[in-house]
Amino acid sequence: MSFTDFDRQMMAEALRLAEHGRYSTSPNPRVGCVICRDDQIVSRGWHQRAGEGHAEVKALEQLSDARAATAYVTLEPCSHRGRTPPCADTLINAGVSRVVVAVEDPNPLVAGRGITRLREAGIQVDVGLMATQAEALNIGFMRRMRGGLPWLRLKSASSIDGRTAMASGESQWITGPAARADVQKLRAQSCAILSGVETILHDDAALTVRGESFSAEDPSASVLEGQWRQPLRLIVDSALRTPVDASLFKAGGEVVIATRVANSKRHQALIAAGATVVVLEDDGHGKVSLPAVMQYLADRSCNEVLLEAGAILAGAVLRAGLVDEWFVYMAPCLMGSSGRPLIDWPMAAMSEQQAVDIIDIRAVGKDWRIQCRVPKRDGSAEEQS
Amino acid sequence: MSFTDFDRQMMAEALRLAEHGRYSTSPNPRVGCVICRDDQIVSRGWHQRAGEGHAEVKALEQLSDARAATAYVTLEPCSHRGRTPPCADTLINAGVSRVVVAVEDPNPLVAGRGITRLREAGIQVDVGLMATQAEALNIGFMRRMRGGLPWLRLKSASSIDGRTAMASGESQWITGPAARADVQKLRAQSCAILSGVETILHDDAALTVRGESFSAEDPSASVLEGQWRQPLRLIVDSALRTPVDASLFKAGGEVVIATRVANSKRHQALIAAGATVVVLEDDGHGKVSLPAVMQYLADRSCNEVLLEAGAILAGAVLRAGLVDEWFVYMAPCLMGSSGRPLIDWPMAAMSEQQAVDIIDIRAVGKDWRIQCRVPKRDGSAEEQS
Repeated sequence: MSFTDFDRQMMAEALRLAEHGRYSTSPNPRVGCVICRDDQIVSRGWHQRAGEGHAEVKALEQLSDARAATAYVTLEPCSHRGRTPPCADTLINAGVSRVVVAVEDPNPLVAGRGITRLREAGIQVDVGLMATQAEALNIGFMRRMRGGLPWLRLKSASSIDGRTAMASGESQWITGPAARADVQKLRAQSCAILSGVETILHDDAALTVRGESFSAEDPSASVLEGQWRQPLRLIVDSALRTPVDASLFKAGGEVVIATRVANSKRHQALIAAGATVVVLEDDGHGKVSLPAVMQYLADRSCNEVLLEAGAILAGAVLRAGLVDEWFVYMAPCLMGSSGRPLIDWPMAAMSEQQAVDIIDIRAVGKDWRIQCRVPKRDGSAEEQS
Repeated sequence: MSFTDFDRQMMAEALRLAEHGRYSTSPNPRVGCVICRDDQIVSRGWHQRAGEGHAEVKALEQLSDARAATAYVTLEPCSHRGRTPPCADTLINAGVSRVVVAVEDPNPLVAGRGITRLREAGIQVDVGLMATQAEALNIGFMRRMRGGLPWLRLKSASSIDGRTAMASGESQWITGPAARADVQKLRAQSCAILSGVETILHDDAALTVRGESFSAEDPSASVLEGQWRQPLRLIVDSALRTPVDASLFKAGGEVVIATRVANSKRHQALIAAGATVVVLEDDGHGKVSLPAVMQYLADRSCNEVLLEAGAILAGAVLRAGLVDEWFVYMAPCLMGSSGRPLIDWPMAAMSEQQAVDIIDIRAVGKDWRIQCRVPKRDGSAEEQS
C-alpha cells in the first residue's frame, strides 16, 4: 500500500488528536481519529478516558452520515465488547468505505481481528501509515500488550559534574522551576510513580501531579485541557519503614507499599493510613525483587512508569536492566567532588560501562534535559536475581 | 552611523576570511579585509602569520588601483611600524575613500590612532559594524591587549555521571574519534596548552597538534589550509618530576616547565632535554601560583590557552577563578559511582556551587559537547592565594 500526502496529513492530525489523551486514557491507549469525505475533514475524535467513548465513536457521533467517508485511526479499531461496543462494528454500521490504520492493536483481544472484521464487511483497510509515531505514542501499552513489562523512565537531576546532592544530603533545588514543571508532565503521563522508602524518609515527597503548577508554568500545554489523573505511587519498602503520617497519604491517588514484611502491626497501620500493602518476592538478599515490582505494575495495567528515587534504588533498577529511558535534568553548575553520585553503581573497569543512546538534548529553562534510551545488556535481567 | 545590508554582507565576508588565520596568526590577531568598488568585491585579504602582510596589505597588493574603493576590515588598521609598515598609511596611499572597521584595536600601540590617521587623511571611517563577532574572533587577544590574562579554556571528557576515569585510573577512551578530533581544533587555535605533571607521568601525553588527524577526520575544515603551528606547552611541575624522556620532548613546539625548584641537577637535565624551565612564585602552599602561570603566558604573548589536565589541577584552576570557558565532552555512558570525579573541588553546601552559563550543546560523533562560560566569583582570584 502506498499512501498519499493527504493520507499522511490526516494521520498526523489523528496522532495530534490522540495526544489530548496523554494524561488521561490509561490503562487504555491514546487514540485519535479523523473522518474525511471528498478530501475534507468532516469530524474528529479522541479517546479521553477508560470507560468513555473510543476515538472512532467520538468522531462518528458528531456525524449524521458517514457513508463513503474515510476514517483515519491511530490504532486498529477494537473488535471486542469491553465497557463500550466494538468500534469495528460501529464503523461498519456507519457506512464508512475506507479505514486507514497506523498500527495493529497488539491487545490479544484485538490483534488483527478488528481489521479482519472491517474487511469482511467490504471496507478497504490500509494499515501501517505512520506506524513508528503511533507505536511511540503508546510505547508502554504496546509492550505490555505484547507480554512485556511497563516502559520505565528514570528521572534524575544533577549538576554538570554528575552530583545530585551535597555530602550532607542538601539538594533543594538543583534544577529550576521550568525543569520541575517538565517533571510534572513526565509524572502526569505515567500510570505509576516508582520510588523508594529513603526518598519518603528523607524528602517526605508526595510524588503527586500538581496540575496547577504545570498548567500555570506552561499555558501552551493545551493537550492537558484539565484532563489528568493522579498516578498510582509504589514505594519499595522492604523493611516497612514508611511513616504513617507521610505526605504520600495526604494527597493524590493510590499508594502501594511493596515490602518483604507480612502481617505485622506496621503493615496494618499503613493500611489504616490508606496504603495498599503488597508482599512481593525476595531478591535473594532480603530486599524486594525489582523485576517482581515491575511485574506487579504490569499486572496492575500500568503502561508507563516513572522512577524517581535516590542514587541507590536508581542504581539497582538500572543494574537490573529494567530502565528503558533516562531523563537527566542537568543544572548549569558544579556541585563539587564531595557531592553525592548521580547513580550508585560501582564499576571496576571501563568494560563494565553502561552505554546509553542520547536521543535528545534540549534547554528547559536554565537547565538542560538529556533524554537517553538504555540498551539492554545481555543477561542484565539475571544480574538482579 | 547606520550600516546597510551590503555593508553587513561585506563585513561578514571579512570575518569569514579572518577565520583562515584561526590556527596561525598568534600572537597577532585574526584579521580579514574585503575591498569593494561599485558594490562589487574587487579584492580579499587575510592575515596569515606574524611577520607576514596584514589583511589590508594582502587585499591591496592584488589591486592596481584602489581609488574610490571601500575597505572592510575586522580590526582597526594599525598605525605603528612593526615588522610591517602601518596599514593606515598603506590604505591612505592606495587612495581608498572609505574604511569600515568592525572594532577598535585595543593594542596600546594603536587604540584609535589608526582610525584618527585615516580620518585626518580625509577618508570616511565608520566603526562598530559586527563588533561583537569581531571581538569574539580574537577573544584572548582583545583581553590581553586590555591588560588582562589570556582566555583560558578548560577541556574535560566525562561520562553522563560525571566520571573521567575508573578508580584504577583506566580512562582510554571515554570519548570517540570525532570528539578527539574536535579537541585537536581547540589545541590548534590555542597559543599554549596548559597541563600538569600528573598528566605527563600518568598518560605520557605529548599535547601536540596532530594536523593530519584532524584534517583527515574533517576534510571540510578548509580554514586549516595546512596553516597551523604547534602551541607552546606549559607543564605545572612544582617539584620538577617531569621525566626527561617524556613524549613531550619528542615532537611539537616549545615546552615550558613551571616549577618552584631552582638550580637543581634535575633543572639542568630538563633544559638538556629541550625544556624551558621557569621558576615562578609560590602559592603559599609550596606549589606554583596559578595566577603567576597565567601571567607568565600573558607575558609570552599567549592569547588563548587550553587547559588539559586531571581533576586536581583543573579543580585548582577553576577555584582560582582563572577558567573562562569550559568544554565538556560527554560520552553517552555511565562509568559508575566508584569512578574518578570530573573536577576535584570538595564543597560542603549548595551555596558554594559554581554556576556556569551553558552557551552551546551539540553532538560530536557519538558524544556531546557542552560549552560553558564560567562567570567570575567575587573574590575568586583571592581564594587561590
